[in-house]
Amino acid sequence: MSDPIPAVQNVHANRARILQNLKDFVRIPSISTDPQAKPDMQHAAEWVAGQLRGMGVDNVAIMPTSGHPVVYGEWLKAGATQPTVLIYGHYDVQPAEPLELWHTPAFEPTEKGENLFGRGASDMKGQVVACLAAVQALLETQTLGVNVKFLVEGEEEIGSPALEKFIPEHKDLLACDVALNPDTGMMAPDIPTITYGLRGLAYFEVRVVGAKQDLHSGLYGGAVHNPAQVLCELVAGMHDDQGRVTLPGFYDSVRPLDPVEREELARLPHGDDFILEQTGVPALYGETGYTNVERIGARPTLEVNGLLSGFTGEGSKTVLPARAMAKISMRLVPDQDPDQVMEQLRQYLEQNAPPTVHWELIKHAGGSASISDIHHPAVAAMEKALESVWGKRPLYRREGGSVPVVAKFQKELGTESVCTGFGLPDDNLHAPNEKVHLPTLYRGIDAVVHFLLNLKA
Amino acid sequence: MSDPIPAVQNVHANRARILQNLKDFVRIPSISTDPQAKPDMQHAAEWVAGQLRGMGVDNVAIMPTSGHPVVYGEWLKAGATQPTVLIYGHYDVQPAEPLELWHTPAFEPTEKGENLFGRGASDMKGQVVACLAAVQALLETQTLGVNVKFLVEGEEEIGSPALEKFIPEHKDLLACDVALNPDTGMMAPDIPTITYGLRGLAYFEVRVVGAKQDLHSGLYGGAVHNPAQVLCELVAGMHDDQGRVTLPGFYDSVRPLDPVEREELARLPHGDDFILEQTGVPALYGETGYTNVERIGARPTLEVNGLLSGFTGEGSKTVLPARAMAKISMRLVPDQDPDQVMEQLRQYLEQNAPPTVHWELIKHAGGSASISDIHHPAVAAMEKALESVWGKRPLYRREGGSVPVVAKFQKELGTESVCTGFGLPDDNLHAPNEKVHLPTLYRGIDAVVHFLLNLKA
Repeated sequence: MSDPIPAVQNVHANRARILQNLKDFVRIPSISTDPQAKPDMQHAAEWVAGQLRGMGVDNVAIMPTSGHPVVYGEWLKAGATQPTVLIYGHYDVQPAEPLELWHTPAFEPTEKGENLFGRGASDMKGQVVACLAAVQALLETQTLGVNVKFLVEGEEEIGSPALEKFIPEHKDLLACDVALNPDTGMMAPDIPTITYGLRGLAYFEVRVVGAKQDLHSGLYGGAVHNPAQVLCELVAGMHDDQGRVTLPGFYDSVRPLDPVEREELARLPHGDDFILEQTGVPALYGETGYTNVERIGARPTLEVNGLLSGFTGEGSKTVLPARAMAKISMRLVPDQDPDQVMEQLRQYLEQNAPPTVHWELIKHAGGSASISDIHHPAVAAMEKALESVWGKRPLYRREGGSVPVVAKFQKELGTESVCTGFGLPDDNLHAPNEKVHLPTLYRGIDAVVHFLLNLKA
Repeated sequence: MSDPIPAVQNVHANRARILQNLKDFVRIPSISTDPQAKPDMQHAAEWVAGQLRGMGVDNVAIMPTSGHPVVYGEWLKAGATQPTVLIYGHYDVQPAEPLELWHTPAFEPTEKGENLFGRGASDMKGQVVACLAAVQALLETQTLGVNVKFLVEGEEEIGSPALEKFIPEHKDLLACDVALNPDTGMMAPDIPTITYGLRGLAYFEVRVVGAKQDLHSGLYGGAVHNPAQVLCELVAGMHDDQGRVTLPGFYDSVRPLDPVEREELARLPHGDDFILEQTGVPALYGETGYTNVERIGARPTLEVNGLLSGFTGEGSKTVLPARAMAKISMRLVPDQDPDQVMEQLRQYLEQNAPPTVHWELIKHAGGSASISDIHHPAVAAMEKALESVWGKRPLYRREGGSVPVVAKFQKELGTESVCTGFGLPDDNLHAPNEKVHLPTLYRGIDAVVHFLLNLKA
């Protein structure tokens, strides 16, 4: 049965073109953390800009920043009486390593059943393509009734460092009534989801340095403190036996969960069985006194993202390493501050690193947590849009992931974000074999069309 | 002034050829732990066999083993009334990584001042070339008065696993009165050294496995136990705050140091200042109640040789790794047994690994510690030889390194080894920029000539 809304008819008719667009976009290995990938980053930015220009968006520009460029575009022909929505996206992706675990090449988009596999297919090239398709359909059918701006950055996967300056420096350009952020996904194909809470992120590298070079473990072992051992001792001490983070003051500014919110969170699906099944771990773990939904969405955490020291090849090498490194990141909740957390980590290292080694602390990224106003009219517009497409009211949740730009928009522009998205928990985000579920993504395009139509004054 | 001994005159006259030999040998990247290096291993074995044949050694053979081949040769023309000495060597070397820290290419031998740089120049291609040169000179001058056998293996740097079977299977072939093992080095260019105690080695890999694949740290962190964190906790728990190893029963079979030996060890040079200077560490570390010389030479230790988990590239990736790995090795003293130590490590993991992860324990290498009989007549022959060349009596020491073949010769052949060598503490063994000090190595050749002459009945 054909949809009565022309723009929805339009996207349904153009699914082959939309899928082709997504494949073209996924094929660009735009890995923001890789210094070698600079040309690919430029290529991805140009691809987005080309799409915007092609659909009739005005003032499209690839704007330089202190890091990877931002793609901007606007269509303001709805006039001053209509609201302006800023559609946020990112064109960068996570690294694809470990490559050997991919069943199909990471940057060769591959359809299998209802899924399209490829790095970025879900996070978030699929979501960007969905928004582009919705706006294009509204423009083609001359039914876009609100003003639209696009901000598509290239550093989300490394914590959006360049936006730190870019947003305050372009307040007028980015001025809007609300932002749409489709980077937070949904809980299941039949559970449309609006995310109103996001954790912040603080990402560090801790380096422990012992001798001026690797030593023979037999000739020096026993009298020289092994930096890999010291690093393990330091990391091990960062949690107590209750699963609590031990950095001094880590919980001081954490906003406690109120009983009403705990009740709400208890109603969410995705309990322990879901996590066990998704991950395959033999048992769950976490901070005493909280449910797993609370641990992931509403409590701060500290994770080791990487470890490297000494000899890691096949077989054996009897080396006493000169250095050891850990990548350590914290997910933050309101009202933690990434800079304060860095100070807490520095204090912890000062108090606990032994005098037998040197150490360094390097900051890679940081962003604050956010709680969005769920009473904003645009949230109602999204709720209605999701209900129109899925036939059921969306769930509201706090999520464990971090989208620092949401807090930045709040702080710098005074703009609330409507956070949703059409990625799924089993999309293998940041992992091998990332995929997007195409039927869900297609519904998402319809939902964005409805959302933009609902926003009209 | 020309030396009165013809074979010493001969080696002095042939130093250019000997140095060229060493360079040719170092140029072969015979890295035993590298599965790709099999052709280079064969090449190195053939090089040694070619040298032996060229100097008139009989029955030279490249003998297959369960791993890399053994090079054998013999010269038994001194007759049954004369002793037979088995000269041990290894043609394999350590990996050269990290390559970027080498000032000259690892396998392009480079002379700088009095040193020759290159992987294996000291450990132990230099020592093998020294022994070959000494025997060749004695053969060329027709003054070799004892029987000589050569056993040059290709797996010392991975713990000599193939010799485990090879030695008992070739007891008659290897029968001898004493072995010469020039793999233990000396304490300084002016301190000739005989090593009578060597630590054993047990080398393992511990793998901790959590989820079936890497996870998004924001979407699962807090409810899933991070394998890198678990690994750090396990490694951190392997030492107590006294620097003692906590594996259950680890010290049970350790032979205590008697007061006489402690007094002897206290007389050795290379105190704390030497270790601080050699390593550049800000402070030393070790087991409470022992001096650093004792910690290195006479006490067992546990070292982390490598750590690997998750994302280790530049920048940041918010991954909750599925796996974490540590290479862990123990240096053993009499009467510890490598298999018992593996059981102790397994018990430790069983008792301490949480139910939130899986783990695996893999054995890479193992060999027992050894104490040699310092009253053996061949030790006196070596003492006299070193004194003839250096003009001072050698020091006797227990060393931290491991040469498992010494214990194997004791156990399987009933043969004592005279352990010495002409490598120096600053030769960067197992590290970038390995080198050998040529004037010391040349003196070593003279000493081996003297030793073989002194052995004559």
